[in-house]
Amino acid sequence: MFDNKERTDLDHLGEFGLIEHLTKAVELTEKSTVKGIGDDAAVLDFSGNKALVSTDLLLEGIHFDLRYVPLKHLGYKAVQVNLSDIYAMNGMATQITFSIGLSSKFPLEAVEELYAGALLACTKYQVDLVGGDTSASKQGLVISVTSIGYAKAEDIVYRNGAQEGDLVCVSGDLGAAYVGLQLLEREKRIFLENPDIQPDLEGKDYIVERQLKPEARRDIVQLLATLGVKPTAMIDVSDGLASEILHICNASGRGCKLYEEKIPIDPMAYDTAREFALDPTVCALNGGEDYELLFTINQADYGKLVGQADISVIGHITEKEAGCELISKSGNVHPIKAQGWNAFSS
Amino acid sequence: MFDNKERTDLDHLGEFGLIEHLTKAVELTEKSTVKGIGDDAAVLDFSGNKALVSTDLLLEGIHFDLRYVPLKHLGYKAVQVNLSDIYAMNGMATQITFSIGLSSKFPLEAVEELYAGALLACTKYQVDLVGGDTSASKQGLVISVTSIGYAKAEDIVYRNGAQEGDLVCVSGDLGAAYVGLQLLEREKRIFLENPDIQPDLEGKDYIVERQLKPEARRDIVQLLATLGVKPTAMIDVSDGLASEILHICNASGRGCKLYEEKIPIDPMAYDTAREFALDPTVCALNGGEDYELLFTINQADYGKLVGQADISVIGHITEKEAGCELISKSGNVHPIKAQGWNAFSS
Repeated sequence: MFDNKERTDLDHLGEFGLIEHLTKAVELTEKSTVKGIGDDAAVLDFSGNKALVSTDLLLEGIHFDLRYVPLKHLGYKAVQVNLSDIYAMNGMATQITFSIGLSSKFPLEAVEELYAGALLACTKYQVDLVGGDTSASKQGLVISVTSIGYAKAEDIVYRNGAQEGDLVCVSGDLGAAYVGLQLLEREKRIFLENPDIQPDLEGKDYIVERQLKPEARRDIVQLLATLGVKPTAMIDVSDGLASEILHICNASGRGCKLYEEKIPIDPMAYDTAREFALDPTVCALNGGEDYELLFTINQADYGKLVGQADISVIGHITEKEAGCELISKSGNVHPIKAQGWNAFSS
Repeated sequence: MFDNKERTDLDHLGEFGLIEHLTKAVELTEKSTVKGIGDDAAVLDFSGNKALVSTDLLLEGIHFDLRYVPLKHLGYKAVQVNLSDIYAMNGMATQITFSIGLSSKFPLEAVEELYAGALLACTKYQVDLVGGDTSASKQGLVISVTSIGYAKAEDIVYRNGAQEGDLVCVSGDLGAAYVGLQLLEREKRIFLENPDIQPDLEGKDYIVERQLKPEARRDIVQLLATLGVKPTAMIDVSDGLASEILHICNASGRGCKLYEEKIPIDPMAYDTAREFALDPTVCALNGGEDYELLFTINQADYGKLVGQADISVIGHITEKEAGCELISKSGNVHPIKAQGWNAFSS
């Protein structure tokens, strides 16, 4: 995925040289960052606010395939995936640490791409990169990101606050990241069979981008604050709608009814799913990696969301005994089961 | 390293099952922990204090060799290595996140051992485990730890505060962890050549433990506070005395003179280094993994440290132009060079 004409071996730099080289572009702009990279630990000031901390591990061969994931996109996505967890608490992310384990097959230029993607995400989302660890890896590429953010105590939204009668809402659309993955996997197979064939991704920009370059929904957290809506429960959609609504229902001790016809699916994702003989609703339920926000609101807040095109009401919360159910377009009732994307292919 | 008689395959549990199983023993006792595992992010309250954040990546084949590192010790060490960075800021660690990437060769019982070691370190050092990520790994074992702690703004000690005339101090003793590693490597080679020969580590408990089960020096941070000594600069000894004193001198824009005869080396480490035809001083300078605290103090504070057997004064800070020098036992002057443990073998 990188141009081999320019290739600087990592061992020429050494660990400290590499860190210095990569981090010289890091700028600190968050006022809660007292001290960033360059000491044993970063120093942060959350004066009066609660601190939020989340961490993710991304491993080559499990979470990404370098045969079709550009490194800059990967760095960007690794940060987004993690920021998404802070937004899912109704908080604002302010700092990350970004750690990488690198095999010697990576030239410096490749690591720079990866890092540039991470820094782009930081700049765009106003987050300071304040630390990390850089190591050799005997295996594949290892990325570990920890996000730190803040919220006022009274603004934090947990998974366990959904009440009977609450409306279930989701931002954006679902399933496209999974359909985009199918597309990239197909083109990879074709490429491996015949390297002369160029990938046919024309007109599929949106769903490919949903897979390669997701955007965490900071804007939704800000929108809800502006509208004066505090969700009763919230989670980000990393494993798929089914898995996430079950997390909310289990944590809240409630059930739910979701309506298939209300689930927002992008038309291109819908059509492409059909091309692959996949049910678009199943892609939304079990595909994952959409990084949208799934949340519940008190019915009294419904009026505040009217006209918000980027938020869909897809169902409501019931008593626990009613279970978690999906009402299909034809009116059939299906129990919602968590599969997650690993089990999805079967 | 684990008993194969009891073997539960990880894929029977699934990711969420594994997390639930591993984290059910997690207890939260820190008053700054508002919410631990179980939501998108942990919630922490540092009311008035600065937050400290540090992160480390530990990779199989680079940082540890499972052929002689028991998993419980590895979990313990992974936490200690990371807490050490918080203590090196003169702060107290209060939370960690603990993420693991696991290949399918690990049975559940092995992961339990690893986790038990991490939790033992948490309990002993009064730290809450508040999150983490658990993933499959196609390669080896991956461990990522992020530590969070706090300090009052006026108590934080950076690397860059050393002044001319300050005394250079170090806790405990140096070089033993590296000598312990040589011992374990030798026993591994012997074992690989002839598996019937049992490891000969008798009487070497201390140096083997220094390698396998280091203890971060929270006690030194507490001791300095009790004595009313605030270091002017501080760092933990992870890469060796040479590398760390250069970090302090470079960050502070100063030079130093260290005295070989003052460097604390445990007698068993000294003798065993000699057995391996290694110079004990070189082990202290470049061996690393001692996780002692290296710090500088104002000369006026010297009297407060008299009689503290666990703290050695090993030199003093000079003007930058004088460079960083080691005065040998015979009175020769050597410039101090950072090698780190990777380059040490050459």
